[in-house]
Amino acid sequence: MIRFDCDYGEGAHPLVLKKLADTNLEQTPGYGEDIYCQQAGDMIRAACQKPQAAVHFLTGGTQTNLTVIAALLRPHQGVLCAQSGHINVHETGAIEAAGHKVLALPSTDGKLTAGQIEQAWHTHFSDDNREHTVQPGMVFLSFPTEMGGIYTKQELDAISRVCRRRGLPLYIDGARLGYGLCAPGCDLDLPSLAALCDAFYIGGTKQGALFGEALVINSPALGADFRYIMKQRGAMLAKGRLLGLQFIALLEDGLYFSLARHAVAQAMRIRQAVEQAGLPLLAPSCTNQQFPIFPNTWLQKLEEQFAFTPWGRVDKKHSAVRLCTSWATRPQDVDAFCQAIAAGPEQ
Amino acid sequence: MIRFDCDYGEGAHPLVLKKLADTNLEQTPGYGEDIYCQQAGDMIRAACQKPQAAVHFLTGGTQTNLTVIAALLRPHQGVLCAQSGHINVHETGAIEAAGHKVLALPSTDGKLTAGQIEQAWHTHFSDDNREHTVQPGMVFLSFPTEMGGIYTKQELDAISRVCRRRGLPLYIDGARLGYGLCAPGCDLDLPSLAALCDAFYIGGTKQGALFGEALVINSPALGADFRYIMKQRGAMLAKGRLLGLQFIALLEDGLYFSLARHAVAQAMRIRQAVEQAGLPLLAPSCTNQQFPIFPNTWLQKLEEQFAFTPWGRVDKKHSAVRLCTSWATRPQDVDAFCQAIAAGPEQ
Amino acid sequence: MIRFDCDYGEGAHPLVLKKLADTNLEQTPGYGEDIYCQQAGDMIRAACQKPQAAVHFLTGGTQTNLTVIAALLRPHQGVLCAQSGHINVHETGAIEAAGHKVLALPSTDGKLTAGQIEQAWHTHFSDDNREHTVQPGMVFLSFPTEMGGIYTKQELDAISRVCRRRGLPLYIDGARLGYGLCAPGCDLDLPSLAALCDAFYIGGTKQGALFGEALVINSPALGADFRYIMKQRGAMLAKGRLLGLQFIALLEDGLYFSLARHAVAQAMRIRQAVEQAGLPLLAPSCTNQQFPIFPNTWLQKLEEQFAFTPWGRVDKKHSAVRLCTSWATRPQDVDAFCQAIAAGPEQ
Amino acid sequence: MIRFDCDYGEGAHPLVLKKLADTNLEQTPGYGEDIYCQQAGDMIRAACQKPQAAVHFLTGGTQTNLTVIAALLRPHQGVLCAQSGHINVHETGAIEAAGHKVLALPSTDGKLTAGQIEQAWHTHFSDDNREHTVQPGMVFLSFPTEMGGIYTKQELDAISRVCRRRGLPLYIDGARLGYGLCAPGCDLDLPSLAALCDAFYIGGTKQGALFGEALVINSPALGADFRYIMKQRGAMLAKGRLLGLQFIALLEDGLYFSLARHAVAQAMRIRQAVEQAGLPLLAPSCTNQQFPIFPNTWLQKLEEQFAFTPWGRVDKKHSAVRLCTSWATRPQDVDAFCQAIAAGPEQ
Repeated sequence: MIRFDCDYGEGAHPLVLKKLADTNLEQTPGYGEDIYCQQAGDMIRAACQKPQAAVHFLTGGTQTNLTVIAALLRPHQGVLCAQSGHINVHETGAIEAAGHKVLALPSTDGKLTAGQIEQAWHTHFSDDNREHTVQPGMVFLSFPTEMGGIYTKQELDAISRVCRRRGLPLYIDGARLGYGLCAPGCDLDLPSLAALCDAFYIGGTKQGALFGEALVINSPALGADFRYIMKQRGAMLAKGRLLGLQFIALLEDGLYFSLARHAVAQAMRIRQAVEQAGLPLLAPSCTNQQFPIFPNTWLQKLEEQFAFTPWGRVDKKHSAVRLCTSWATRPQDVDAFCQAIAAGPEQ
Repeated sequence: MIRFDCDYGEGAHPLVLKKLADTNLEQTPGYGEDIYCQQAGDMIRAACQKPQAAVHFLTGGTQTNLTVIAALLRPHQGVLCAQSGHINVHETGAIEAAGHKVLALPSTDGKLTAGQIEQAWHTHFSDDNREHTVQPGMVFLSFPTEMGGIYTKQELDAISRVCRRRGLPLYIDGARLGYGLCAPGCDLDLPSLAALCDAFYIGGTKQGALFGEALVINSPALGADFRYIMKQRGAMLAKGRLLGLQFIALLEDGLYFSLARHAVAQAMRIRQAVEQAGLPLLAPSCTNQQFPIFPNTWLQKLEEQFAFTPWGRVDKKHSAVRLCTSWATRPQDVDAFCQAIAAGPEQ
Repeated sequence: MIRFDCDYGEGAHPLVLKKLADTNLEQTPGYGEDIYCQQAGDMIRAACQKPQAAVHFLTGGTQTNLTVIAALLRPHQGVLCAQSGHINVHETGAIEAAGHKVLALPSTDGKLTAGQIEQAWHTHFSDDNREHTVQPGMVFLSFPTEMGGIYTKQELDAISRVCRRRGLPLYIDGARLGYGLCAPGCDLDLPSLAALCDAFYIGGTKQGALFGEALVINSPALGADFRYIMKQRGAMLAKGRLLGLQFIALLEDGLYFSLARHAVAQAMRIRQAVEQAGLPLLAPSCTNQQFPIFPNTWLQKLEEQFAFTPWGRVDKKHSAVRLCTSWATRPQDVDAFCQAIAAGPEQ
Repeated sequence: MIRFDCDYGEGAHPLVLKKLADTNLEQTPGYGEDIYCQQAGDMIRAACQKPQAAVHFLTGGTQTNLTVIAALLRPHQGVLCAQSGHINVHETGAIEAAGHKVLALPSTDGKLTAGQIEQAWHTHFSDDNREHTVQPGMVFLSFPTEMGGIYTKQELDAISRVCRRRGLPLYIDGARLGYGLCAPGCDLDLPSLAALCDAFYIGGTKQGALFGEALVINSPALGADFRYIMKQRGAMLAKGRLLGLQFIALLEDGLYFSLARHAVAQAMRIRQAVEQAGLPLLAPSCTNQQFPIFPNTWLQKLEEQFAFTPWGRVDKKHSAVRLCTSWATRPQDVDAFCQAIAAGPEQ
C-alpha cells in the first residue's frame, strides 16, 4: 500500500533525528528556557526579519491555535475565520472550550477576503444592539488554506490593512507554511508574510519534524505573559529543547524549504497526471495537497494500491479525495500513482 | 556543573531513541490509531492486569491532568487534592481554566488520608446549603507525592474504599510512578496500584522517554468519549505512534523499572550522605527526590559545583533544597556530591 | 410615540404586582426554597401534566439557556440549533463562554426539521474522524421561532422522535411560549409540548411578569444537581419567592393564556391591515411578532408616530421591520397603526 | 416564629414597590438603556463623587462578582481574597467556572491586610518559575466582611496603595455595603470608599430592594465593553429599568442609609443583650450580622421561638449562630429576643 492519505505518516527527517541523538545526554534547563530554544528562536527571528518577535515552541497545531486565541481575546470576543477553517471544523470545539465563538464566514475556496473582514467588523460595530452579539476580536486564516490554496501578497496585504485599521490582530495558522511558501506562483516569503500579520506559526509536524510548531508573535505587547497561558493549557513541553533542536535542524542550510519544495514538486506531478487524464479537481491547489475527483468505480480500484482520504461525494457517481505529499514522499511512489492514472480506469 | 535540579534534564534513554530511529520512515495512521500505540496499550494492560482498561498517550503531565479532570467532572464539581498538589500549585490554574475548583485539603507531607476525604465528602453532603458550595467530584493524588513520599498499600486501600463508597473517582498522577514503585519499602506494584484507583498515568517524561505519559482508565464508562476531549484540549499528538513506540521501548525487558531502580539507588546514596553528615531532611523521601536542609553558607559553596532547586527557607540561617536523580544520573556525579558532603562545610 | 418595538417595554400585569405587594412583608427562606415556589411548581406540573418534572425559576432567557445547556452537555458536545437561533446570534457567546459550540443548521424560517437533526447526527457518527469534530449533544429550538413561526404537533413529534432515537435531549426556549400556544392554528398545548421535549421554559418576562422564566425539566436524571449549576452561573435569585409569586399570579385563572391571546389578537389585526394594504411580510407569523416589509419612504413617515425594530434591508427601496404586541398592548394603539396603514403612504 | 436567619427574608421597602407600581405601564427601552437607569446612575455617581464612573445594574451578588471578575482578569490571572471570602466559599465555583483561580489568603476575621497582598504579589513575582503558578490579577474584599467586620479608612487606604503600586485592581463586594458604612465606628463613607477602590457594588437585595446590585466601575478603561460581558453571563435584565427604579427609590432622601441605620441599631441591641448575658461572640461585629456563642441546650430552647443560622460548633457543648437584622426587622421582635436572652437558659 502506498500512502498519500496524510502528511504526517512518517517520523522525522533523518537530520532532525540526528540532532536529537547528538544532544541526547546533555543536561539543559526545562520548559524552553535552554540554549537550543534560544538559538532556534534567533534563527527564526533572523529568517523572518523580525528581531523583536517572541518565538515559542508548542507541540501541535490545535494546541497552538487554542493557546494563541485564548491569549489574544477578551471573553466577549470571537475569532473571524473561513467556514472551512480548521478551528471551526476539526478541533472538537477547542476554541469554544476556551470560551470563544468562532465567527465563521462563508468561503468556497477556504480563503477569507479583506472585504469580508471589513464587512463583519462594520456589521458588528454599526449595530445599536452590538452588546448582544459576539464582538470580532481577531482574524484567523490558514496559509495555505484547508483546500491547499494560497493567498497572494496583494490579498494578504489587503487583509492586513483591514485588520490594522480595525484593531483586529491577524493570526496565521502555518501548519503547512513551507508547502505554501514554496508553491509555484507564491509571491510571499517568510519576511513578507511575517510583516503582514501579528502572529503565525511555522509548522514542523507536517514538514520534517517529529512534532512541533514554532509560534512567532511579532509584538511584545500582544505576547505579554504568553508563557503562563502555554503552561495553563498544557502546552509547555518539559524538555522544551526537543522543539528548539528540531527547528535548528530544519532551519540549517534551508532544509525546511528544500523539503517543502520536494513535497510540492511531487504534488504537482500528481496534479499534472490528474489533469492529463481529464479528471477535474475540487480546487486548484498548488501546494502539497491535491483534491482530484474520480468516478467511484475507479476509486475502488485505486484503493487497492493507494491510500488517500475521502473528501466528500460530488454526485452519485463521483467523489473527491485528498492526496498529500510530504517531505518524505518517494518519487517512485508518485510514479506508480501517475502511471495508474495514465493507464485509465479500465486497467 | 553537575546538575541535580530536575529529573528531565536529559533526552531519552538510548533504547527509546533507537526505537524511534528504527521505525522512522514507516507510514502509520495518525492520532494514536497505529499498531504501536495498540501494542504499547496491550503491554500496559498486561502489566497492570487490567485487560479492559483504556490506555491513552499524552505528551505531558499538566496536559494529562487537565484532560482527565475535564473529562470526569460535571461543571459544579471540584477535585479534592492535597494543598501541595501539583494541580493546586504548579499548573497555572489549568484546572480552573477547565472550569473546576481545586478543593485543597491541608497536608504536611503532601499525602491525603482516607479520613480527610471522607470528612470533606461528609461536610459537603451534610450541609443544607450544599448547592452554594462546590461538590467534591473526584480525588487527585500523586504517587509519589510532591515531597517524594509514597502511600502504603494500606493507606491507598483505605482511600480507595472511601472513594468507592462515596462515588468519587480516584485518579493518580504518576509523573514519577516508577520512582515510587521502586522505592525501598514500597509494598505496591503496578497491578495493586491499578486495582485501587480508577485512572492513573505512567509517567514517561521523567523516566526515560523524550516525552509522554501513558494514561490508564480502568472503566470503559469512565473513559467514554475521552479521545474527543483529548483532541479538544490539544492533547492528541498527530504522530501518536511516537508515544506508543517510546512506551514499547520502556516496557520491553522491564527497562522502565530498571531505570527507576537506578535513580532511586542514587537518591538513597545522597540521602545516606546527608544523614551521615548530620543534616536534617525536610521530609523523609525514599524516592528520587531528596530534600536536605543546609546552612546557607554551605549551600553557597555547594552551588559552585552542583545545581539543585531552592525549596524554601527554613530559618534565617538554613534552607531546604531539592535534589533529583533520574534514569540518567551518573554514579560518579553522585560520588562527587557525597564526597563534598562528607568533607563538610569548611572544605 | 406608540411603541411596538419590543414585548418587554412595560412592567408587569397589575395582578402580578399585587401578588408581590400582598406578600411583601412575609418572611420566607431564600433561593427558591419557599412555599410560593413550591406552589408555583405544583401548578406548572399540573398544567403540563408532568407530575415528576422539576421546576426551577430563573430571571431571564439568556441565563436560562446557558444554565440548561451547561448542565446537559459534556465538554466535547455542542448544541444543534437553527442558524437564526437566539443562542447562536443574540447571546454574546454565552454558550461558548460555557465551553460549548453552537452547531448551527441552515434554516430560512427559523425552524429546524427532524430530517436536519437526523442528518447532523448521522454525519457526525458516521465519520471515522468524528473525534476531531464537536459531537451533537442536544437540540435547542424556540417556540415560537425568532421569526414568529410555530411548529405543528406533527413537526415537533417528528423532531422528538429523532431526538429520542439518537439520545439527544430536546430543549425548547419558550420566551414567548404563550404567544405560540395561543396562535391561530396552533395544535399544541402545554401538556402535548411538554410530552414531546425533555426540558423547556415558560417565559414570564415577555408575558406579563416583571421578570422570570419557569424552567421545566421532565426527567429527574436530566436535572440532577441542577440547582448547583444555577448557583454557579449566578442564576439563583436570593429572594426566589418573587419568581414563584409571579408565576402563581400568572397561572391563576388562566391569566397567562388570556394575556397571550390578547397579544396575538392585536398582532393579527396588524397583520390583516398590512395584508389588506398589499404589503408583503418577511415571514408569515401568527404570533405576537409581525415582520412587514415597507417602502423606505413610508417607513420614515411611520416612524414619526410609531416605534418598531429594523429587521433588515430587503432591497434598495424596501426594508423589513418587526412589530411586537404584548399582554400590555392597548387596542387603541393598534387602531391607530391600522388606520395609518389603511390611509396609505401619501397620507 | 421570629426570623433572624437572613437579611433577605422579606420583599422590598414599600417605597421601592411604590416606585415600580407608579411606573408600571410606562414603555421604556430594555436592557438598562432607559431614563431611570440613567437617573439612578447619575444619583450614584453624585453620591460617590465619581462623575466619570460607569454604573451598571445587575440582579444578584454572585452574578455581579463573576461578571466583574471575568471582565477584569486575563486567563492566567487569579483573584486574591480572604479564605472566608464569598467567592471562595459560597458561590459554587462561579469564579472557577469563568476560568479563574481564587487565590485564598488566610484570615481569622475575614479581613485581608495590605501586607498580605504585598507579600502574595512579591512571592509570585520573585519566583523564577512564576509562569507555573497563577498570577495575582486583582483583589477582592467584602465590606463588611463575611463575619460582619469593617475595614477602617486606614486599613483600606493601605490596601489601596498596595493595589495601585502593584497594578492590581481592587474590587469591593458591597452586598451589605450600607450596613457597613452605617456601623458604629465606621470612618468611611461612599465617597471615601469609592476613592480607594477600582470597582465596588452597592447591594440592594439585602438592603431594601426586591433584588438588584449597583456596580460602580471607577475607570472607563477598566470597564471597557462591560455590557457585552454582562449579556454573555446572563446578567443583563431585559426590563433593566426595574433596577434603576429601585435604586432611585432607595437613594431618594437617603432611604438606603436610614434603612441601614435601623438594621444596625437593632443588631447592636442584640449584641448588647448577648454581652450582658455574659455570652461570648465569635467575632465582634458592629454591623447587621451578629455571631453569638450559646450552650447547645439553650440554643435548642431558643429555636422554638427564633430562627437563626448555624455557624459552626465551638466545642462539644457550645455552638455559634448567626443572627441577621435588616431594614425590615421589627423592634418588637428584637425586644422578644433580648428578653429571652436576659431571662437566661432556664426560663
